[in-house]
Amino acid sequence: MIVVQKYGGTSVADTARIWRVAGRIADAKRSGRDVVAVVSAMGKTTDQLLAQAKQVSPIPPARELDMLLTAGERISMALLAMAIHELGYTALSLTGSQAGIITDATHGKARILDITPGRITAGLGAGHVVIVAGFQGVCRDSKEVTTLGRGGSDTTAVALAAALGARTCEIYTDVDGVYTADPRICPSARKLTWMSHEEMLELAACGATVLQVRSVEYARNHGVAIHVRSSFTPAEGTWIVERGDAMEQAIITAVAHDVSEGKLVIRRVPDKPGIAARIFTTLADAHINIDMIVQNVAEDGMTDISCTLPLEDGPKAVQLMEAIAREICAEAVLFDEDIGKVSLVGAGMKTHPGVAAAMFSALSEVGVNIEMISTSTIRLSVIVRASDVATAVRAVHQRFGLDQESAEVER
Amino acid sequence: MIVVQKYGGTSVADTARIWRVAGRIADAKRSGRDVVAVVSAMGKTTDQLLAQAKQVSPIPPARELDMLLTAGERISMALLAMAIHELGYTALSLTGSQAGIITDATHGKARILDITPGRITAGLGAGHVVIVAGFQGVCRDSKEVTTLGRGGSDTTAVALAAALGARTCEIYTDVDGVYTADPRICPSARKLTWMSHEEMLELAACGATVLQVRSVEYARNHGVAIHVRSSFTPAEGTWIVERGDAMEQAIITAVAHDVSEGKLVIRRVPDKPGIAARIFTTLADAHINIDMIVQNVAEDGMTDISCTLPLEDGPKAVQLMEAIAREICAEAVLFDEDIGKVSLVGAGMKTHPGVAAAMFSALSEVGVNIEMISTSTIRLSVIVRASDVATAVRAVHQRFGLDQESAEVER
Repeated sequence: MIVVQKYGGTSVADTARIWRVAGRIADAKRSGRDVVAVVSAMGKTTDQLLAQAKQVSPIPPARELDMLLTAGERISMALLAMAIHELGYTALSLTGSQAGIITDATHGKARILDITPGRITAGLGAGHVVIVAGFQGVCRDSKEVTTLGRGGSDTTAVALAAALGARTCEIYTDVDGVYTADPRICPSARKLTWMSHEEMLELAACGATVLQVRSVEYARNHGVAIHVRSSFTPAEGTWIVERGDAMEQAIITAVAHDVSEGKLVIRRVPDKPGIAARIFTTLADAHINIDMIVQNVAEDGMTDISCTLPLEDGPKAVQLMEAIAREICAEAVLFDEDIGKVSLVGAGMKTHPGVAAAMFSALSEVGVNIEMISTSTIRLSVIVRASDVATAVRAVHQRFGLDQESAEVER
Repeated sequence: MIVVQKYGGTSVADTARIWRVAGRIADAKRSGRDVVAVVSAMGKTTDQLLAQAKQVSPIPPARELDMLLTAGERISMALLAMAIHELGYTALSLTGSQAGIITDATHGKARILDITPGRITAGLGAGHVVIVAGFQGVCRDSKEVTTLGRGGSDTTAVALAAALGARTCEIYTDVDGVYTADPRICPSARKLTWMSHEEMLELAACGATVLQVRSVEYARNHGVAIHVRSSFTPAEGTWIVERGDAMEQAIITAVAHDVSEGKLVIRRVPDKPGIAARIFTTLADAHINIDMIVQNVAEDGMTDISCTLPLEDGPKAVQLMEAIAREICAEAVLFDEDIGKVSLVGAGMKTHPGVAAAMFSALSEVGVNIEMISTSTIRLSVIVRASDVATAVRAVHQRFGLDQESAEVER
């Protein structure tokens, strides 16, 4: 049986931790499994390489940046292979290109198009532990080295599990699973035993950093179960699985929060067809990802348009919108950095009306004002003051009984 | 016109130096030349990676060690490409594999078998500066990544110059050329304007570390001129060229010294056929490189056998020889670490008798005792006490007039 294990940067941050990972892989081998281990670069290596690149060039050529960053996993995977050899097993480390991770040509955030795992299966067939560099691939057409973007190693692991027919992909990380809320701001948060791909997708999109969104999408599309667990303890973590129709669904699974966005407001925009389209086309052309959008009711032919977007894109967005505001005679462009988003996620939400009302009353009871609202079938998000985020998370976590063991049992 | 330039680790040790190298390459582009730049890993990177490997495994698997070490040039070449972009030129960095450096399967000291420079010539054709990772290649049969061993970047550069039809290979280093002796122990040493491949080969084999022996062999076999020069100054360095018959040859070109070897002595060996063969076969089987061998005249059917070999192989050689000594009833095995080798090199030596006599008298006049002697057609080496090496170098350097400008003019 093949098992795919992914070890993040903190799990291989130094040689002592690499030894621990090697020991875990040896355990899996001893229990008779074929192991494919996907590794990230050691600790802060990627950040250090990025900083070196910035010293040389403020906007380095994307191809060369990928060439540079892929040195990181090369180091961690070779050291891990050596440690496994010391434990008496044989190991073979493979770059993304050698492992057959075929991508498109988008340097810096390439998408996986195909996996041709010939060297992996040959390595497993010869009895080796196969170690694969996460985060990297090779472009199908140009044969250039590419990277998958931040957190791309999760996607590498899930894609390999799908291609190799492994039922499970184990993601080892520095937390021991997915929680009902961030335990750092909500001490009563509990570790979840399982959740659906859809719920994890919404959580990841709403600020939960434990898994990359794309890896969860890939797992959902290919039916791969993900087991998120700690590389420091043997305890089971959280399973992210396909939702069976027969499963009992909790109304609410978890609360996520995100303070990485700001709010852009364009005041007193003429309420005419085409204006909103022009604004959001301009932002899209500048590769600025818009999250929530609110347009209030027009009075005297004028309206306010608000949207949220990543904090780092704020200055650029303001610059673009000020140019448009002058042309269309809007009154002002404002950017508010002090906001936070609090999201409720739960697959049972769609069949339970009244979730929004319960959330709003919980927030009102602790004096938190709601500035914007957005919903999907299994998610409800509100924008509040950044300073209110912790209070809001605790209030809704308690209101929906997420700190109760029973909520878990009910599943 | 294509020029191949090689920049060693000290030349790209930090971002400031990478900028300087980029500036030099831009100068060459401005003067209308197509540039292929071969780079080593930054500063002490290779040593640091080796140290990390040793932390994990005392004898790491050679394949994985090559995977690890090749991360070094990947970093330096990508940063250099970025710096060149900043200067307004386009650059393309290529790994050894991408550059078509085809080797045999000997991980850690692979030999170049062929160069298939399709991606290099395509890059040059598109107007790019092409940067190639030194020291690394790819095995013809297994497609595994290989390294060429210490100093292998020199060989990469010379081999590329030969394959691309470049007349000259510029080797940029931290010294400004090849000297008549090591200036650190012989202050009157002068920089040589040129020398032949054969002379450089002998010097490199006798302890001159400026170029790797194999790169000089490759240059000689393929008729490539090497220009050794400093990456810190614009001054011309030393040209290493094919020897034309019409060239005037100085009798002596330079003095080299080497304190990296020790002397193994097996005392009172029975003077019978087959014994010496057995001793040296045993050492060869253990991959111990023997340099000089001396066997003294037999008395009462017994003889002493001495040879020199790398200091780090001393303990292993002693262990092997003690086992043999017991069997053949030799008296003792000794290893002397306090020796040094002083060598005179000069293509004119073979037509000038009396060089040995002049060297021996020069040494005798300063009280240096000679323990072993070895010669080739253009080299004369003696083993002396390690503490006598500096005195010996200065004495022969002066005796053969190497500190005189005239010696140079005579060429």
